[in-house]
Amino acid sequence: MGIFGGRGKVYAPKEEVNLGPQSNEKYIRPNVKAPRIAGLLIKIAAWLLESWIIRPVAFYILKRDNLIHELISFAEQTESPWFLPLHPPKDHQEQETKSIQPDLTPPQRVEQAIDCLPQCPEMVSDSTFTFRWTIRDYSRAYLSGETTPTMVAERLLAAVRQSLEPNLQMEFLINQNKEDILKQATESTLRYEIGQPISVLDGVPIAVKDEIDCLPYPTTGGTTWLHKVRPCKRDACCVQHLRSCGAILVGKTNMHELGTGISGINPHYGVTKNPYNIKKICGGSSSGSAAVVAAGLCPVALGVDGGGSVRVPAALCGVVGFKPTFGCISHTGVLPLNWTVGSIGILAGTVEDAFIAHTVISDHIVPHESAYSPPRVEFPRLKSTSSISNIKLAKYSEWFNDSNDEIRSCCDQALTRLSTHYGWKTVEVTLPDIEAMRLAHYITIASECSTSLGPLLVKSNTKQFGWDTRVAMSIYGAFSSKEYLDAQRLRSRHMYFHKEIFRKADVIVTPTTGVTAYSIQNDALKTGELDYINGAALVQYMIAGNFLGLPAITIPIGYDKQGLPIGLQFIGQPWAEATLLHLAFATQTICMSSYRNPEVFFDLLKKE
Amino acid sequence: MGIFGGRGKVYAPKEEVNLGPQSNEKYIRPNVKAPRIAGLLIKIAAWLLESWIIRPVAFYILKRDNLIHELISFAEQTESPWFLPLHPPKDHQEQETKSIQPDLTPPQRVEQAIDCLPQCPEMVSDSTFTFRWTIRDYSRAYLSGETTPTMVAERLLAAVRQSLEPNLQMEFLINQNKEDILKQATESTLRYEIGQPISVLDGVPIAVKDEIDCLPYPTTGGTTWLHKVRPCKRDACCVQHLRSCGAILVGKTNMHELGTGISGINPHYGVTKNPYNIKKICGGSSSGSAAVVAAGLCPVALGVDGGGSVRVPAALCGVVGFKPTFGCISHTGVLPLNWTVGSIGILAGTVEDAFIAHTVISDHIVPHESAYSPPRVEFPRLKSTSSISNIKLAKYSEWFNDSNDEIRSCCDQALTRLSTHYGWKTVEVTLPDIEAMRLAHYITIASECSTSLGPLLVKSNTKQFGWDTRVAMSIYGAFSSKEYLDAQRLRSRHMYFHKEIFRKADVIVTPTTGVTAYSIQNDALKTGELDYINGAALVQYMIAGNFLGLPAITIPIGYDKQGLPIGLQFIGQPWAEATLLHLAFATQTICMSSYRNPEVFFDLLKKE
Repeated sequence: MGIFGGRGKVYAPKEEVNLGPQSNEKYIRPNVKAPRIAGLLIKIAAWLLESWIIRPVAFYILKRDNLIHELISFAEQTESPWFLPLHPPKDHQEQETKSIQPDLTPPQRVEQAIDCLPQCPEMVSDSTFTFRWTIRDYSRAYLSGETTPTMVAERLLAAVRQSLEPNLQMEFLINQNKEDILKQATESTLRYEIGQPISVLDGVPIAVKDEIDCLPYPTTGGTTWLHKVRPCKRDACCVQHLRSCGAILVGKTNMHELGTGISGINPHYGVTKNPYNIKKICGGSSSGSAAVVAAGLCPVALGVDGGGSVRVPAALCGVVGFKPTFGCISHTGVLPLNWTVGSIGILAGTVEDAFIAHTVISDHIVPHESAYSPPRVEFPRLKSTSSISNIKLAKYSEWFNDSNDEIRSCCDQALTRLSTHYGWKTVEVTLPDIEAMRLAHYITIASECSTSLGPLLVKSNTKQFGWDTRVAMSIYGAFSSKEYLDAQRLRSRHMYFHKEIFRKADVIVTPTTGVTAYSIQNDALKTGELDYINGAALVQYMIAGNFLGLPAITIPIGYDKQGLPIGLQFIGQPWAEATLLHLAFATQTICMSSYRNPEVFFDLLKKE
Repeated sequence: MGIFGGRGKVYAPKEEVNLGPQSNEKYIRPNVKAPRIAGLLIKIAAWLLESWIIRPVAFYILKRDNLIHELISFAEQTESPWFLPLHPPKDHQEQETKSIQPDLTPPQRVEQAIDCLPQCPEMVSDSTFTFRWTIRDYSRAYLSGETTPTMVAERLLAAVRQSLEPNLQMEFLINQNKEDILKQATESTLRYEIGQPISVLDGVPIAVKDEIDCLPYPTTGGTTWLHKVRPCKRDACCVQHLRSCGAILVGKTNMHELGTGISGINPHYGVTKNPYNIKKICGGSSSGSAAVVAAGLCPVALGVDGGGSVRVPAALCGVVGFKPTFGCISHTGVLPLNWTVGSIGILAGTVEDAFIAHTVISDHIVPHESAYSPPRVEFPRLKSTSSISNIKLAKYSEWFNDSNDEIRSCCDQALTRLSTHYGWKTVEVTLPDIEAMRLAHYITIASECSTSLGPLLVKSNTKQFGWDTRVAMSIYGAFSSKEYLDAQRLRSRHMYFHKEIFRKADVIVTPTTGVTAYSIQNDALKTGELDYINGAALVQYMIAGNFLGLPAITIPIGYDKQGLPIGLQFIGQPWAEATLLHLAFATQTICMSSYRNPEVFFDLLKKE
């Protein structure tokens, strides 16, 4: 090892790599060499990594042991870097989709979206209620006068109070303003009274991750200081759209501090607990957004997904999590924690509701660097699932099976049922260098977060951070420009591999996570915890959605023996949101009968 | 200064910055705090910077003193990074230009280009010969039978031999294959004999920088080892095109080792000497390409410009240097020393010849990351310069005047003459944060070079490097991913500023360099030298052409008292190659009468 580094993996030219089932490419499991730490240990780790003397040595060892040297820093590759995961617009319209004019207002879009939905089934009666109410259930209840937005808002506020009682301490939210919510509800109720609701979303409660600007709240990003140096001055673009449809914005959901972790344990605002089992984590970083949807407080919540932060908590909490193509939703008004991997995503009780919310917030705004004309906005006609035969699902079995036994068998069963019901075929493929992609994504998001927060961090004080975030931020700043650029070269490589896979199949199918929700440990409550091994198992299927900007969706398909939800993920081709929603809808249709309500559940439409 | 850095400049939002003449923005001169070193001192510097213990401290001090901390690493800015300097294609055709079908073969393109040129003046007689022969002069001499490609090739080989005699030691070339050249010349001669020359370029000698693949030569990049680990297997795309037009490729020109410096002093292959004064440098890194054109060996040579590497030696050697818009010329077959700032450029005796070569080699190939359709290829109709009135030249006087007195007054005189002859107006503007842009560009090119060469460097040995390159490579690897990303954020900022300036003016005008060719010192011959102060004065006007991907051209406009050439630079709007060539042609027209041949000059078309 000289000044110029050492020897690492020599990547074969990408065109020469066999992506078929018989490939020689070896699957490398997430190779994490870092013990779980919390409590005093995490404090010691922070001190060591912040020490100018120990820091370089510690990072040398960490990078070496975690294969960063071998797979990234010292590796030999011939690709040019690919910085932004942009994709050219599609040049054809898909079957069974509807193009929507981009100049429609959000309420007009919703109206068109509703036309794509199947006839609304009769509202299920209280006694047989087994699943969460949907946007259309709310709308119908308001239109029929069964209830009003104000009553729902009051029930919601009561439910939140109840969720904070000592036996629950769910910690769904970081901020909620009772007056503001009741004011919105009153206005909505008035609109229904005069017979002029704005859209099907009028009066529907929607929560927003505290990473997204939403008045009248500060945007904390899960910290105790960020809102002080970066005041929230106006609604984020996506929030504006929802508001313009009449939705009631019911507060800012809890999140992993600065999105630096995937557990959702926040030492400042408490651990958001999993509604399916309050001893378990929710997953993160959009932990509160997943939990409020799971617990029935909102049919939809917004999250941000930079490394699975929407899909992971969605899977762990048994809800739908949808992250569209990079550039699909305006990032204006979102904390700039990264520039090239993050996207606003939707957490929803059903695919139908994810679809409606997507219609409202997707602007297909593409970053300035690109000359793309925005792609045509396309929505699936979800009226029937019979038409979507001939679907091919790419499956890399070695990777797919690298999840725990219950997840694996649950996902396999789902594939069998999808094959039986719809005739979908599974195509065996090989996706090389997945572990290298995970590391490259980590270097990317870490470097970008460290840069975007740089000037703000200087104004803060390390003491204001949770200890886990303090360690994370210290690691985030530990990469060289060469490592960042090498990571972007791997991005080129994987762009190519995925494009080739999509010649053989419509989507890639994976479990959403490698493990289900794990237990909250006491030592993590005050300091946060670092559990990179469980963390890697949670994000191991997430990376292509972020690093390559591909759309991806997770659908709840079952539960493990502990009753914890399991998700199945489809990763789609660029701009194939319509296909993904279609497949998710079909999957939900055959899984829905087995859906269970969680332990902690609030029925806001319950008849008195 | 904690783990998260310190305080630096707070950049005002870009929209609030006044770009007019009355701006409060302060001009910061290139602020280089590093002494010139060569000989033993440069060896000591290399040892220190490569030492694991001293390295971090040394770089901390260097970054602090050179304003990198203040203007980049610790600065506060709100921009998102802009990684690739891509620009959308133009949506209108300019007046006085001709669109050329992109599917024409290179010889067909040349034919169309010739139609855009003024009538060929009579070939000047030997006795009045005061300037270099042009491509059309060669063509006419071959067509008339005055001489043949074989005779020219033989004269060229003799001239190169002569240039290497002890009294000259010009070191134009790194590699030249006599047999290969004579073979090409014989074939060309035969084509003329049977009356079937391929194009006006048939039999015209063209040299290629040793950074560009050109068979049968290895591509050394000015090193002693790179060609061993990266064999040259085929012609670069641009070389292929020239060859297909019948041009004779006459060898690989000398260059600054790996393009790491701007002086052109190469300890392995010798210092290319300035034909106007052999005690002076040529500038670099395309030193040999500038020198062979200046010395009359070729009407055109190819270079690569990542930080002024075509335009600087062109200006110092009194020839035309043209770097088109980023993405205009395929980079296939060029050493990948960087990905986001470099472009092939053309060195030529006259604007006319730069124009012909540009026609041949520009493919308008845009990197894979972009979905741009290639812009229409446009060429200026150079037949007359009378039509280009109404031109506005943006001038930032404080910056413009930060060159030495002789350059300043020579450039001012040129502007006066352009105003008198053509009525061009000068518009006073302010271009903020120029020094920050220079540093951001340096961080970018350094990081990219260090990354691209990474795996090759491991296979080499520091002892194979020149000492100056060894120090440079050590500095190149010293930047963090945060510094790289902050540099890209500044790229966004300057993209905006330049776009705004181009609302007020057609081009930006500057001197090409802040100093003329400086003296070659003996202590630099074996070790190379590091002279960042002179280096900064050479590149201070270059950066927008590379960092922002803008097209730029330098035209010789006069000489200082020592007889050393002075260049004037136009920086153009994206894809405005036609405008730039037009303006350069007009400028050359009024300056040409004062052009002088250099001390060292070979007249290959001389009548016996």
